[in-house]
Amino acid sequence: MKESSADNSKQRAIDQLKKARNTGDDGLLLAIASGNRSALAQGITRVETGHSDWLSQMPPTSKKSIRIGISGVPGAGKSTLIESLGMLLVDQGMRVAVLAIDPASPVSKGSILGDKTRMERLSMHERAFVRPSSNGTTLGGVTKSTREAMHLCEHAGYDIIIIETVGVGQSEIAVRAMCDYFLLLLLAGAGDQLQGIKRGIMEICDGIAITKADGENTSNAQNAVGEFTTALHYFPARDHGLMPQVIAISAQENRGIDTLWQMIQHAYSYLDDRGLVEQNRQTQYLSWLHEMIREQTVAQFYLNNKTAIEAAEISIKSKQSTPYVAANYILKNS
Amino acid sequence: MKESSADNSKQRAIDQLKKARNTGDDGLLLAIASGNRSALAQGITRVETGHSDWLSQMPPTSKKSIRIGISGVPGAGKSTLIESLGMLLVDQGMRVAVLAIDPASPVSKGSILGDKTRMERLSMHERAFVRPSSNGTTLGGVTKSTREAMHLCEHAGYDIIIIETVGVGQSEIAVRAMCDYFLLLLLAGAGDQLQGIKRGIMEICDGIAITKADGENTSNAQNAVGEFTTALHYFPARDHGLMPQVIAISAQENRGIDTLWQMIQHAYSYLDDRGLVEQNRQTQYLSWLHEMIREQTVAQFYLNNKTAIEAAEISIKSKQSTPYVAANYILKNS
Repeated sequence: MKESSADNSKQRAIDQLKKARNTGDDGLLLAIASGNRSALAQGITRVETGHSDWLSQMPPTSKKSIRIGISGVPGAGKSTLIESLGMLLVDQGMRVAVLAIDPASPVSKGSILGDKTRMERLSMHERAFVRPSSNGTTLGGVTKSTREAMHLCEHAGYDIIIIETVGVGQSEIAVRAMCDYFLLLLLAGAGDQLQGIKRGIMEICDGIAITKADGENTSNAQNAVGEFTTALHYFPARDHGLMPQVIAISAQENRGIDTLWQMIQHAYSYLDDRGLVEQNRQTQYLSWLHEMIREQTVAQFYLNNKTAIEAAEISIKSKQSTPYVAANYILKNS
Repeated sequence: MKESSADNSKQRAIDQLKKARNTGDDGLLLAIASGNRSALAQGITRVETGHSDWLSQMPPTSKKSIRIGISGVPGAGKSTLIESLGMLLVDQGMRVAVLAIDPASPVSKGSILGDKTRMERLSMHERAFVRPSSNGTTLGGVTKSTREAMHLCEHAGYDIIIIETVGVGQSEIAVRAMCDYFLLLLLAGAGDQLQGIKRGIMEICDGIAITKADGENTSNAQNAVGEFTTALHYFPARDHGLMPQVIAISAQENRGIDTLWQMIQHAYSYLDDRGLVEQNRQTQYLSWLHEMIREQTVAQFYLNNKTAIEAAEISIKSKQSTPYVAANYILKNS
């Protein structure tokens, strides 16, 4: 009896949710959907500055973009590769969006990337949209606005969305969680010390490209391809059964870029044929739902318990209480 | 009028908080305070397995331990150094606790450290307590239980608490936030690529030790001391005005360890004399208060809105709704 009343109330909630989409007209979303790039840029600025309520006016996405994450330490050649790959794709008639995650460093709040050439040819192409850097002081904030920017690019109908991230750990995992394919860029001969750091990232990548395989570096890079292919065998096998592939590329001499694209397409088709791209996105949507619930619940709690929380801060500062006691007290009395 | 009624209710909350400490007797906390190491180990296991309610029975800490964070990539010689430094301290009559943060890798859930010699001499010393590794699948979880373990070590009266962390980014920032002094270990000649990654960590460290400064490596290490000392001048100055120092050490030949300890003591005294250690801890206690509030508020919300959240998941899976719409709906109707 109780069971079925819970079922009823769940069904009611599902029905209400169907009607809950805010269908109020928003000129910006329409302009973004029509392919207006400055509208898209403006929309991304909106979400980066904390305004994302209006995203609930977006319909459940119909078109799927291929989402590619690209990671590598500073100097690994990310921008150069993205420019080459992006040009290859727009030349084939595709529309390409590029977003970058660039968590500010904790003290200087400055960019850890510094100045660099930022895909000048690609950003001027009419079928491309390049957003150089997502601002933010916390990784969580940067991740959230990058994800929302990605949805806006998808709403704008881009075929390919490339998300660039600097190889420093946690942001890789966040980007991995929003992409269909995750590519790691490595330099040949960067030293053993580096490998310890990269192990966590190698575990989550779908492919590795050894960059700058040109001139004197060519044979080094070829050796690295062999080494990393071997190394990947020591990692746990993926549930879907596809092994990550390793290739050498030279963005400068424009070699290997087309092979890289074939490699990405092959992996994407393999996953898509098995329903895994779709499944992956469902998982992502659910985890974003939970993230939004968490964030907004907390904001509401702080609004409702301002006095008690201020009192707790005073008690802790004056050593009359510990965080453990105070948190307990506030939560019991809210 | 309204102002003063808010003030009154804040004062009432402060008074109630004073009485709120759960003073129920807990044999484990008493045993830990008496210096019983197996009680301490048992207490840490409790918090690592998610049971931390009982910590509200701890009084506001009276004794201050010196908390030292030590970071470095795998192979930088963290364990060897901690063993040497720890032995120096226990030989001087101090009691030393060592905790390690070791975030599991995202896929294999295994340790990214692998097997290694784990401070065998130190762990057998009666004035030392070594906890090799904090388990956990999320960085947040590991950070939380390490912090709670640190409080338990403080409750147990250890003079020095050393927290070891592997140099992979975000965990450094978390450890930095719970320590008085943060030491970065670097190998001489580990390559330029590595420096890009370390920049974020160099910004938050109080000192750098170039490790393995022995044999053929001695002059390399001395050069590195000069280079990093210069490099540190390019970072933003600290508010407190103390520059991070750089030294070369050899744990194997036991050289530089006493100088390192003097360097740490000097920095600690400098900060303590200016009230900055105390101020730093207040900031930490406040941020932990907020973290606990966030975590428990969310848990409560999920408990109270189970049906609506399940309905949202179903609607998203069947593409009848987006996370943006569903989160909005749940929060408005909770």
